[in-house]
Amino acid sequence: MSFDAAVHAKAIQLNTLVLDMTAASGSGHPTTAMSLGHMTTVLMYHAMRWSPEQPGLPTADRLVLSAGHGVPIVYAAYADLGGVIEDGEALRPCTLDDLKTLRRADSPLDGHPNPCEGFPFFDAATGSLGQGLSVAAGLGLAARLDGLDRRIYCIIGDGESREGQIWEAVDFLIDHKLCNVLPIFSCNGFGQADTVSAQQSPEVLTKKLEAAGFSVLQIDGHDPAAIRDAFEAFAANSSVLVDNEPPAVGTRAQDRAVAVKHVAIVARTIKGWGAPSVQGHGWHGKPPKGPQLEQAKTELSECRVRLVKGLGAEDMTFAIYPPAEQGPPPAIEGEAPSLTAVMGQYDMGHIISRGSLATRKAYGIALRALGKVNPNIVVLDGDVRNSTFAETFYKDADLKNRFFECKIAEQNMISVAAGLSAAGKTPFCSSFAKFLTRGYDQIEMAINSGSNIKVVGSHAGISLAADGPSQMGLPDIAWFRAFTTMQDHRGNPGCYVLQPADAYAAYGLTMVMAEYEGACYMRTLRPDTEFLYDESTVFNLGGLEVLTEGRDLLIVAAGYMVHEANRALDDLDKAGIDATLVDLYSLPFDSEKLLDLAQENNGMILTLEDNYGASLGSAVADALTEDGGAFTLEQMFVKRIPKSARSADDVMRMCGLDHQAIVQRACQLLQVAEV
Amino acid sequence: MSFDAAVHAKAIQLNTLVLDMTAASGSGHPTTAMSLGHMTTVLMYHAMRWSPEQPGLPTADRLVLSAGHGVPIVYAAYADLGGVIEDGEALRPCTLDDLKTLRRADSPLDGHPNPCEGFPFFDAATGSLGQGLSVAAGLGLAARLDGLDRRIYCIIGDGESREGQIWEAVDFLIDHKLCNVLPIFSCNGFGQADTVSAQQSPEVLTKKLEAAGFSVLQIDGHDPAAIRDAFEAFAANSSVLVDNEPPAVGTRAQDRAVAVKHVAIVARTIKGWGAPSVQGHGWHGKPPKGPQLEQAKTELSECRVRLVKGLGAEDMTFAIYPPAEQGPPPAIEGEAPSLTAVMGQYDMGHIISRGSLATRKAYGIALRALGKVNPNIVVLDGDVRNSTFAETFYKDADLKNRFFECKIAEQNMISVAAGLSAAGKTPFCSSFAKFLTRGYDQIEMAINSGSNIKVVGSHAGISLAADGPSQMGLPDIAWFRAFTTMQDHRGNPGCYVLQPADAYAAYGLTMVMAEYEGACYMRTLRPDTEFLYDESTVFNLGGLEVLTEGRDLLIVAAGYMVHEANRALDDLDKAGIDATLVDLYSLPFDSEKLLDLAQENNGMILTLEDNYGASLGSAVADALTEDGGAFTLEQMFVKRIPKSARSADDVMRMCGLDHQAIVQRACQLLQVAEV
Repeated sequence: MSFDAAVHAKAIQLNTLVLDMTAASGSGHPTTAMSLGHMTTVLMYHAMRWSPEQPGLPTADRLVLSAGHGVPIVYAAYADLGGVIEDGEALRPCTLDDLKTLRRADSPLDGHPNPCEGFPFFDAATGSLGQGLSVAAGLGLAARLDGLDRRIYCIIGDGESREGQIWEAVDFLIDHKLCNVLPIFSCNGFGQADTVSAQQSPEVLTKKLEAAGFSVLQIDGHDPAAIRDAFEAFAANSSVLVDNEPPAVGTRAQDRAVAVKHVAIVARTIKGWGAPSVQGHGWHGKPPKGPQLEQAKTELSECRVRLVKGLGAEDMTFAIYPPAEQGPPPAIEGEAPSLTAVMGQYDMGHIISRGSLATRKAYGIALRALGKVNPNIVVLDGDVRNSTFAETFYKDADLKNRFFECKIAEQNMISVAAGLSAAGKTPFCSSFAKFLTRGYDQIEMAINSGSNIKVVGSHAGISLAADGPSQMGLPDIAWFRAFTTMQDHRGNPGCYVLQPADAYAAYGLTMVMAEYEGACYMRTLRPDTEFLYDESTVFNLGGLEVLTEGRDLLIVAAGYMVHEANRALDDLDKAGIDATLVDLYSLPFDSEKLLDLAQENNGMILTLEDNYGASLGSAVADALTEDGGAFTLEQMFVKRIPKSARSADDVMRMCGLDHQAIVQRACQLLQVAEV
Repeated sequence: MSFDAAVHAKAIQLNTLVLDMTAASGSGHPTTAMSLGHMTTVLMYHAMRWSPEQPGLPTADRLVLSAGHGVPIVYAAYADLGGVIEDGEALRPCTLDDLKTLRRADSPLDGHPNPCEGFPFFDAATGSLGQGLSVAAGLGLAARLDGLDRRIYCIIGDGESREGQIWEAVDFLIDHKLCNVLPIFSCNGFGQADTVSAQQSPEVLTKKLEAAGFSVLQIDGHDPAAIRDAFEAFAANSSVLVDNEPPAVGTRAQDRAVAVKHVAIVARTIKGWGAPSVQGHGWHGKPPKGPQLEQAKTELSECRVRLVKGLGAEDMTFAIYPPAEQGPPPAIEGEAPSLTAVMGQYDMGHIISRGSLATRKAYGIALRALGKVNPNIVVLDGDVRNSTFAETFYKDADLKNRFFECKIAEQNMISVAAGLSAAGKTPFCSSFAKFLTRGYDQIEMAINSGSNIKVVGSHAGISLAADGPSQMGLPDIAWFRAFTTMQDHRGNPGCYVLQPADAYAAYGLTMVMAEYEGACYMRTLRPDTEFLYDESTVFNLGGLEVLTEGRDLLIVAAGYMVHEANRALDDLDKAGIDATLVDLYSLPFDSEKLLDLAQENNGMILTLEDNYGASLGSAVADALTEDGGAFTLEQMFVKRIPKSARSADDVMRMCGLDHQAIVQRACQLLQVAEV
């Protein structure tokens, strides 16, 4: 009974702080936050094993607030507990005064959870809905890999549980037996525009979770004892350490023994709990002010009188259990060998002598070599590991437990990777470049979270040919390039975009990505491509490679198009065009170097791409217009929605990007006759 | 019994054709196709009411092949039935010889379903998985709106049912009582890399569908009578015409009467049915050739001997029921009035006199005005209609039945819109620009499908301020711009990107979008913005507007930044800079006109954007580098991940994009002193 009263008292205190801070900011979602007052209290003051002084301890339990707009309730509890925030370079306890800075330009209390602006309690930026449970799954996976008895709590709104990604995450938790993750659905019944659909009612959510294999506890989200008991039921079933085997990927239902119990909570909550005047529709994302604020606070005080009788101050001290001790993180054991060395080692030496290898295959080999020396490397794929060649990692018995098959659910894959990154892992995620589009919102949120995530899209561009446009990555460079133009919280480009043209480049750039801390996107190709480089070539983020030096025309290409350009060089030479060929394998790149090359070629530039425009050619145009020089840039790229063709040569011809078309265009550009 | 034998015979014939055609193409997914042989036969030769001569009849039943890689089985049946394909400008029956052209550059038989390359049987390009059921839902909605008793069949693979979008579509079907759509899950148990997860087993899929509210028929997908009976059970429950009320949006579970019965089929199928030598793992996406092909075909022949005893040729004629007659499409009733007129009409005249209005609000008003005159306009939103102002349409009692609340599930929303478009509607879809990122793969597939889809992202850029980066559209222009550089199947830009700066522009451009047939993306803003234009301004796709004419500096901006630029003009003037200000509200645009303006301003250009780079400024760079002129372009845009700030002014200052920063940069660029 005293636990009940103490939780009520604390929830009322926090809800009052929520009203005050959102009134101060003039925006925010007080009523959503207030629906979470009791559950947040039981979590942060009682159930979670964590330390406000060191919220980021690798052993501490975690809270992922998927319903990110409810964040004021966490800020209130955190300030009350004196959790640390960043203040310049230093950390200091968050105070109640800090709460009044909510959403200010200079405040670490951002509008939605944001670990990169000075609030280290969170692992991931949330607020674009439906992503948190996947992040939680990633944290849970990492805990198992590290042998940590860490529990991950994830609060999900009923409205956001309409997002398919939530159900991808639910399946992932079951597939990977992650019973250290607790999904908590807060069902307050109201979305933004309207009530929540009946498809997301507590009853239907419960049925859906049960259908997926969860044991569901339906509770009143404002009943302290019920909340505590539910969390305890979860905790009793939360150990994944007893079952540290790799997930039972591919086991069919009938053969699968249920070894673990997955618990989920479906809580009925009240949006604006404690203050009837701000409950119901019409108060989403709207802080009451003036007399309405006073009325809501009065109602909360009346709640206190009713629910918290005879509670002494001493009863208000909750026991926060500290997290367990942890050993040092796993060490990186030396450097990975070269591509040739590693292929020799894996009995693949004969392939090197063939003179060509697909970049996707070199990527797989690099992953395997990396995995052997770097225990932090983890690999995720979406049912195409035998196409992306992530399976080269998976098939190595030593590495299999660090491979996570995500099945055909790319959104979940990316956010799981963000969770793994938050726990110190270096995740590589692969799928077809086209299918990764499904995870763009998630990739942006990972970049916002400071994730050390490596995204690798295979079968990029049109060289895939036969499968047609539904499988081709065509606007991918355009999208990722946006992140190459800005900086992340470390001051680095938001993302590096890498396009290896041969196996050595793919191998080298995979190694470079692993060393670098931050987001990268690498594109690999379906067809085998000839070797352009060798062991001695050094690849750098931001680098480029001059393959031939001429003086009439600067040809800039990347990936597959470097090879088409190479095939054009002879005919260009015959036509009297002495071309410089640059492999611009990285965006961003050294624009001064490129400008010099452009000037050395009379300011005549031709760019080649196997995707839509607004991409590499545009990046070159950006560089050329920086300081007033006179340049003529001709951009060749895919200018019509492509279709199937039986070979890469066919599709290049169809799209006007084959070597003959390149020669033709170059001759037109320089006004010389073709030979 | 003779039905059984006839279906077996036909399925075996089609499966044999599948083996031959994929062998001819050297790629494709024969075993997936063969798992669908029986169901395709019962559908296309028996259950569907359609006409091979006129596959696109508005009244015909439809087949959406969500598992697009299974398409060879449909091609085989279609050729056998003499369905028409495009041959140049004309239509002619598809022949068995055509099957051998599968995936060739000049063939209408693309690698995956593709209605825009000459195969009119399909409504949507599929192949990026998990999207078909949403398209089917859109077709079902359109049928109800048009009063057509049309049935929509959708075949979904078990592997792809891991995609969250499938479950978004399932919820949508229930919310909108669309029992004219039949989801058919084909469970062959094998994905690409491995077996399908136990979470997508027939048992678990059935439980999940039941939890969502479906009545599930589990069948053997190779048992002709069972397939027929299941289709008949669906057909008996498929009329939505008895319940033509607008969907019960927002009704809570307890208040919702279940008026309709939703049927789904979960079929156990065999990947490579009839040819044991190509069954099981290892045959995904791999056509057998040579002796392996012969063996598989021999096995199919043996199947025929076993299953098809004493069937005469006369038994092989199935009855294809023709579709019903249909009246003419609904007529457009005149032109929508002007913004001022319409606001007067809706008692909003006083707002005009204020001198400012948010573009998102003008969008809502335009939708309402459009809806009144154009019966094809339909509107979709994802639980933020009161933020995007799509609710202005929804709140009009005359229009409410053409508004579809999609809840927080953007992927489904976009593909539903693609389905509505395929049935002749003009769908406008809105959400926050940020959240629409969830639907980018779906938007690309809609563009590939030739959809007449209008996507409107609100709260774009940083002017949203307080909510922080999780709610801001920042790389959106970069992505959509890729589609402005290429052409769709009509020869138009793959997408127009529109950034209205004031309410008149937003209103005008919404009208223009509705008139144009093809994909458009329009960005609207949260804050009110001052009027720049009036009733007389004409807005065009591809247009731009010169707001001030100067001679020292060309400032190019769009949307919110036009206003910051406007605020800078006075100070620029004081500093002696006579600037030209262009509102570049459309991408693509008339690049010659822009080049002329750049030359008239000494080749000095400043671009302003409230998003990341690789966007509008880059589009200008592309234009400037086209023909050798000397230009200096300074691009101002968001160069660091933003965070919350309390006002648009605060966030502009934080990101170095306020009018003072513009003046400063312009002065540096022109090397003049600031005043």
